[in-house]
Amino acid sequence: MKTLRNLFLEELADIYDAEQRIAKALPTLAQAATDARLREAFDAHLRETENHVVVLEQVFRRFGESPRSAPCEATVGLLKEAAEIADENAGAPTLNAALIAAVQKVEHYEIASYGCLHAWAEMLGNPDAASALKKILVEEKGADDVLNELARRSCNQEACAAGVN
Amino acid sequence: MKTLRNLFLEELADIYDAEQRIAKALPTLAQAATDARLREAFDAHLRETENHVVVLEQVFRRFGESPRSAPCEATVGLLKEAAEIADENAGAPTLNAALIAAVQKVEHYEIASYGCLHAWAEMLGNPDAASALKKILVEEKGADDVLNELARRSCNQEACAAGVN
Repeated sequence: MKTLRNLFLEELADIYDAEQRIAKALPTLAQAATDARLREAFDAHLRETENHVVVLEQVFRRFGESPRSAPCEATVGLLKEAAEIADENAGAPTLNAALIAAVQKVEHYEIASYGCLHAWAEMLGNPDAASALKKILVEEKGADDVLNELARRSCNQEACAAGVN
Repeated sequence: MKTLRNLFLEELADIYDAEQRIAKALPTLAQAATDARLREAFDAHLRETENHVVVLEQVFRRFGESPRSAPCEATVGLLKEAAEIADENAGAPTLNAALIAAVQKVEHYEIASYGCLHAWAEMLGNPDAASALKKILVEEKGADDVLNELARRSCNQEACAAGVN
């Protein structure tokens, strides 16, 4: 019989895999970006992502488990799409806006996942794990907000540079 | 050379495909749910989703285009995962909490997509399309809020019914 603890640990293994894949993909996406502030935002989020991997290992241990990964097919697909978007928009004024859109989809996958993980850790009576997961959730939302702001302030305008047709 | 209009229409074709797939999947997920309020929430969101398909067709026309779908691999993967989760948790007290988590990932994909589409429709000087897309965005966020509330008020507690081990 599946328990909430099983469900929690499965979701934790999924996002642990996702974070490692995102950490591998972000340097390439940062290199593809031609807007300096976007590149900086991707680099800053890479450092956060690397830290999330470490924090997730601590969360596994707080539940008396060793860290383990389960292949996160959703993140595999979203990162593949992001790489394709970087190629398809290379050299075009839409590049940075398109990269933002692709990475925001990854951020939102994480926001949904950490929202559940945080609530479940609380239900499982592990406030330290819940607090660590909440902190990551806040950083993922913050990364999404930064991308929204960059889109609004510069990258979407740049994408219009070639006109609206 | 890729333009913002191209990028917008590609994203529109992606979410048009996604909404149709979600409309097909929601009845099965509603049937799988054993919490009456969750089933109602899925049914209510099905009606919204069916309307989103119609609204997206109007948005295509507002840009002088015929509606077209591009296979949304991310949604295919997320809905496959949701179906697997429904099977794996069948008969367990975790079922409704797990269904909520799976559907929230789909909602967040849509929230990311409509956030960009709304901003891009504004940049492209089409306030009617922008307003229609914003309305859908608000409904997707609302659906996510309803699921959060159901998880918090009942489904996460129910998932703990068999204990926290």
